[in-house]
Formats: sequence, structure tokens, C-alpha cells
Amino acid sequence: MAGNRSISHGTPPVVVAANGLLDRRAFLRGGAAMAAAMTGYTVIKPAAGEALKEDPWSLAPGATSPPVEQRSRFEQKVVRTLSNPNGEPRNTHARTPHHLLNGTITPNSLHFTILHGGTPDIDPDRHRLVIHGLVKRPLIFTLDTLARYPMVSRMTFVECGGNSAPLFSPQPMQASVQALHGLASCAEWTGVQLSTLLEETGIDAKAKWLVAEGADSPAVSRSFPLLKAQDDAMIALYQNGERLMPGNGYPMRLLLPGWEGNMNVKFLRSLKLTDQPAMSYYESKIYSQMLPNGKSYQFYFLQEVKSFITHPSHGMAMQGPGFYEISGIAYSGDSRISKVMVSADGGKTWAKAALQEPVLSKSFTRFRVPWQWDGGPAVLQSRAWDEAGNVQPTRAQFIAHRGELDAAPPILAFPNQHYNSITSWAVDRKGEVKHVYA
Amino acid sequence: MAGNRSISHGTPPVVVAANGLLDRRAFLRGGAAMAAAMTGYTVIKPAAGEALKEDPWSLAPGATSPPVEQRSRFEQKVVRTLSNPNGEPRNTHARTPHHLLNGTITPNSLHFTILHGGTPDIDPDRHRLVIHGLVKRPLIFTLDTLARYPMVSRMTFVECGGNSAPLFSPQPMQASVQALHGLASCAEWTGVQLSTLLEETGIDAKAKWLVAEGADSPAVSRSFPLLKAQDDAMIALYQNGERLMPGNGYPMRLLLPGWEGNMNVKFLRSLKLTDQPAMSYYESKIYSQMLPNGKSYQFYFLQEVKSFITHPSHGMAMQGPGFYEISGIAYSGDSRISKVMVSADGGKTWAKAALQEPVLSKSFTRFRVPWQWDGGPAVLQSRAWDEAGNVQPTRAQFIAHRGELDAAPPILAFPNQHYNSITSWAVDRKGEVKHVYA
Repeated sequence: MAGNRSISHGTPPVVVAANGLLDRRAFLRGGAAMAAAMTGYTVIKPAAGEALKEDPWSLAPGATSPPVEQRSRFEQKVVRTLSNPNGEPRNTHARTPHHLLNGTITPNSLHFTILHGGTPDIDPDRHRLVIHGLVKRPLIFTLDTLARYPMVSRMTFVECGGNSAPLFSPQPMQASVQALHGLASCAEWTGVQLSTLLEETGIDAKAKWLVAEGADSPAVSRSFPLLKAQDDAMIALYQNGERLMPGNGYPMRLLLPGWEGNMNVKFLRSLKLTDQPAMSYYESKIYSQMLPNGKSYQFYFLQEVKSFITHPSHGMAMQGPGFYEISGIAYSGDSRISKVMVSADGGKTWAKAALQEPVLSKSFTRFRVPWQWDGGPAVLQSRAWDEAGNVQPTRAQFIAHRGELDAAPPILAFPNQHYNSITSWAVDRKGEVKHVYA
Repeated sequence: MAGNRSISHGTPPVVVAANGLLDRRAFLRGGAAMAAAMTGYTVIKPAAGEALKEDPWSLAPGATSPPVEQRSRFEQKVVRTLSNPNGEPRNTHARTPHHLLNGTITPNSLHFTILHGGTPDIDPDRHRLVIHGLVKRPLIFTLDTLARYPMVSRMTFVECGGNSAPLFSPQPMQASVQALHGLASCAEWTGVQLSTLLEETGIDAKAKWLVAEGADSPAVSRSFPLLKAQDDAMIALYQNGERLMPGNGYPMRLLLPGWEGNMNVKFLRSLKLTDQPAMSYYESKIYSQMLPNGKSYQFYFLQEVKSFITHPSHGMAMQGPGFYEISGIAYSGDSRISKVMVSADGGKTWAKAALQEPVLSKSFTRFRVPWQWDGGPAVLQSRAWDEAGNVQPTRAQFIAHRGELDAAPPILAFPNQHYNSITSWAVDRKGEVKHVYA
């Protein structure tokens, strides 16, 4: 049998940073350099002559295909975690399970949502969008009329300004990547550029801002500059090919690529052009950013460059020493990710991660680094750069500028936003992965 | 009010082909050139002082967010059509509703499937993949061991060899784009490159082919050359971020980007390296291609360059003359789409379509052309080119080479595959859209 022959593997992988981080170019050589690293750890040699046994599902006809495919019953653990599962009269968060996903797209059923008054049950044929205020002629659009305009598609992430807020806590909260970073997701959105519609209404020379308002019961309202409306703002009608999910604004939402999630107003019903911002409840109170000196930013639109490791991450158990892939997500609201560095020794030495092509502006980028874990303690970190030259700050840099809390409040009630520093996962000798500050 | 002022629109759009096809560069100018075209057709001017009325869903709290988001009850018509809804003991097709989608990604719940023995209910912890035959050491992989290997993600389409087969009929069948072309879909797939695993097993010098076998009850089995295994073949574990849908091969499938759908063996349990193809049932009988001279191709792996218009398409009703966007999907199993041309006069004159970036190899590319419909008869066509120089044939060219049927069999029982010629939609004066040959 072939199994008895001598085995000739490729060249061993090159260690490029301490604690076993390997050269990312091993990926590009089709795995040849991986083979030596994997040997004996992750594969099972069949005993001589042993064949796979027949499983019961191979011995009888399977199920009928449904009109709308449903996931396997063995994937029931792959769910969003809810902050308000009983629908009490307050906001509700549903967080994306990044540790159970891979790639760059978030499936629509698992895209994060935050609703401030629940999800309205909107009849798309009755829904209207009005563009008015400082325009040359106010116009009303139905879903049918919007469907006749030129459309565009773009992959982009949406992230709540409050994503990662638990990291303002003075002690590292022992919580999963879903709990810490689950308020960011990525999809392909298709719709009509707002600039196209503003060509229809015309723009009064005094207009400098737009005020967007949703059709949900709290009428969530946010202001944004005319410059963004004329740049890449979109009235999104489709999410990953199909109509928007209800929690993401069905039948239409404002999409401001790279800007604070709450500004991407869902159930969009009104865009009013004005000469100044509205200073609405959500922009002047809920999503205002406090600084250590007691002042606050007036506005903080951009979701800045960030990355975090999803595999391995808090709560996972390593299956003994050997080869693993370190993998995570990087993104910037400003531009394309240009580089992600990964450390296995808490930031003392770094290895360059492979970035999955295509790397798209304002979109999730999956990064990967091969790792030979020797079974000793390790602290895993990732740090991202974007093409505009922005770099993800260390926690020390971030806290010096933005402050931290005196004590940890409940995880869902952090009074500050826009945390984008490094996340650290500590691996102990037992292979348990915990959240640490390093 | 601003609405009473004089309106100054951008320059009128440039007509670049007969029957009202406009310059695609209008899209790139932010819609300025569209405005003149749209005026009076698709927008509603609010009466002076009129405000949007409050809809009932704006006046009461909405629904609680579920762990797994579900689409709106108003989208229940967006379903796959089933060829075997009662699960009779034969194969079953579920077709993607392209006319109701947009963008390039097919959501997982609407990805097409064909099952030859139903969908098995596989326990992922018990499922095994064996790689054996002409290897240096046979190996067995579990889902857990595969998870430790380096992964890759790629966007790619999967298309059944029998997609578009109704166009072999001598008369144009009056059926929707879903019925005609719904056996192709596109997703981001993530998994382990097959070449990585073959580095682990080693390859005997006599090996030239691989035989893949699924764990479903018919044990669907297909052969493919070692060259493809060492190129871009993947063991796919994730589909658009989450684990594969059951109908798409949960927990793992073979992915052979650009090659005939049936070869992308689902529920993959065995890869055997051999010195010759297996000549399995599916490759020697079901998916064999007959030619007019009575001979047949021995193999026909590649899904060749193709395009079709999804909006407007058969069964849609135009809402009166004026501006519309013509939009569709192009793809090639060989390379990237380089160009799509669109005609509104049955192929006499052509306009270049805008291609949505990023244009990816072996992936759906959305194309769009602005169209000013004058209300008269029109015949819409699209034709695609790829970077390898392949061009979608006209129907006359295709039939001359591949033949057509003498009479139309039932739409779901066409005995030939790999139809990739031009699809024509005729628009009549009433705005009804029908399938024609032109």
C-alpha cells in the first residue's frame, strides 16, 4: 500500500515571530510548507485495509428540498445573542457570532442589529421616502419608482459606535468575541446612490446637512453632511442579493459606508436638506463621545481602523500543541486595509498576516497567519493599518487619549463608544483562551 | 418653497445604441445625466405643504429581534421553484429567483440545489473525509482536524451543466429567468485548498485523476483531473460566512471553481487518487453531451462564458415609457468577465454595459445599462466576453455546433447541457416582456 512508503514533505515553515508565528507566504505555496508542521497533529491514518463505515444518512433517501433552504439542525448554536430577548420597552442588541463564522460576509440572518423601538412590520407598497427641505423640488419615492433608477452594489461593513465598548472597562471582561465585537457585520448592499436622487430634487445653495428619519416608532433621526450624501451614500434596497432583512431596515435604509452604524438610518422615510445639523436625541445624547477632561466630541462619524482575532478567541479550547491558523477580521471606515500584523507574545514581536483578496475599501478583510503552538503560554494580538495611513492604537495609547471607566458596568450599558484598540487573547498551558489586557 | 423654482438639470444622456440605450458613463457621473431622463416618469411631487402621513407601523413599538433574523412576511414570493416538491424518488431541482434579486451574491437560503437522493441529515461530528488510492499515505479528516488547516475564501459561482437547457427547445419557451437560468448561484466559499491536503497525503507518481464521492444515498461520484486538484479546488466548509446549507453539501463539499455543478460533489466523504477516470453514472450518462452528429463529448467540465438580463425579464410588466435600468449577470468558468454588450434592437446595435466592481474570476458580475424606453417594441439581449478571449455565442452559432431538439420536452427534462448562448427578451407596446429567439 502507498501508506507504507517513505514520506517526503516540503521545506519546513519559516518562523517569523516569537512563539511560533510562521511565514504567511507558506499559504501562497499551496500548503507545501504546512505539511511538515501538521504531521502527527491533526490527521488520522486509517488502519491497513480499513474503509469508512457507512453512516445511517448514506443508507436511506434524504429530505425534500424546501423553497427556502434552512440550515442544518446541528447548527442551532450559531445564533445572535440578544440583550433584550423578551422585548421590554428599551433598545435591543443582536450580536454576530464571529467565532462561529469565517470568510468576510455576514449571512443576513446573523447580521447584527440594534433596534430602539423594535422592528416595524412595514408594507413595502405603502412605504414612502420623501426628500425635502433645501431642495429645488421636493420629491416622494416609492419602492417601485426607486427600482427604475441606476443602482450600484458595494460590499461594506456596518458597525455600531458602541461596538467593543466593553474594552473601556478597567479590567478585561471575560466575554467572547461575539459579546465584545459582535456589533459589526459585513454585506453586499445594492441600491440607488443618494447623489442620483439629489440630482432629481436639485440642491439649494444654502443646504449643508441632511437629516435622515426612520419610519420606526422612535423615528430614529440623524444628521450627516451634504458632502457624504454627494460621495458614497446609498439608499440600500438589497442585502446580499435579497431585500433587506426587517431588522436591517426593510424596505430601505440609508447606507453611509464607514460611518457610525446608528447614522445608517433604517426604515428610511425622510431626508431633509438643512443648513445645520438637527442635534437629534441620538446624536447629541446617545452617541456623544465623552473625553477624560469632561468635554465631548460634537460628532464622531468615522468607524476607525480596527481588527480582532476570531480564531482562536475567548472561550475556545485548543486541542493540544501543534499547528493552528490564527484568523480574524480587519476593517477601516476610511479606506482599504493595507497591513495586519499579528503577535503571539503580547506585542513584543510581530508577523505580517496574509490578507484575503479582494481587499475592498470600508469592508471586512479576513487575515490569516499560520501558527505552530508549542503548548506554552501565548498572548495573541492583531493590529491593522489602512491605506490612508491610520493605525489601530495600542490600548495604552487609546486610554491615554480617550480614558477608561473607573469600574466595569454591566456589559450592555457602556456609556462610551468608538473603541478601536487592540484585543488580546491569552492562551494558557491547558489551551484555554481568555481575554486579557497586554 | 424650493419646489416652485426653475429646475436646472445636467446634460442629457447620450444615446449610444438604437432603441434608447444610453451611455453607461452616465452612472459614473453620479447620476447627473440621468436626471433629465427620469423627469416626469418615476417621481411624485408632493402637493404644496403636504407631509407624509404616519403609517400604523410608525405609531407603536415593533417586534422583538430574534436570534436568527427572518425575512419580511411581505417577501414570501421570493422563493426557489421546486421540480419535485413532494419528494418523489427522483432528483429535485430548486431554482434561484434571479428576477427578484440584485447584486452578485445569492443568499444561502436561495442558492440553487439539485439533489439526486434528497438531502441527508449529517451529524458533522461523525462525518469523515478519506483521501486514499494513489497517495503516499491515506488520511482521514474530521471537521475538527480540517479546521486547523490554513483556509482560503473565494467568491465563485456554481452552475449546473443543465442550466439554461430549455433554450435547446426549437421554440422559445415562455418561462421566467428563474425557470431558464435559475440553476446558477454565487457565494463566498471558505475552506481548505485541496492542494494543502494532498501535500499531507503525498501523491503517487501514477496518479492522474481523483474520484470524489458524496455521503448521500446515491453516493454521487465524479472524476476530475489531478491538475484541477492542484490548482484551485477547495474543500468548502463555509458559504457566505456560515456553515454550508444542507442542500449545498453540509458539512463539506468539493468546490471546483468554474466547473460543472455536479462535479462539486456535496457531502464529500471520499477522494480517491487514480490513474484514470471512474466513468461514473453521472459523468458517463447523466451529464454527457450529445452532438448533432450522434457523437458525444467524453467530458465537458467548463461552464463557459454566459450572461442573461434579469431586469427586465420574462413575465415582468413595464410601467410605461421612460427610463429603466437594464441589469443582469455575467460569468465565465474560465476567467474574469472583460466586457458585456447589451442590445435593445435584437442584436443590430450594441452598447457597452457598466460592470460592477470588483470583477472577480469565476464569479457573478453584475452589469447595468441605462435605457430610455420610447414605448415601442424592443428586443433586449446581452453578450459577454471573458479575459481569456472567450465570447458568448449567438444562438445561430450555438445551434450550428451543438444542435437543438426537434420538439420541446417538458421544461425539466432536457437531455442536453451546457447551453451558453444569448437570451432575448421582447418588450411589446403594452410593456409585457416575453422570451423570444432573435
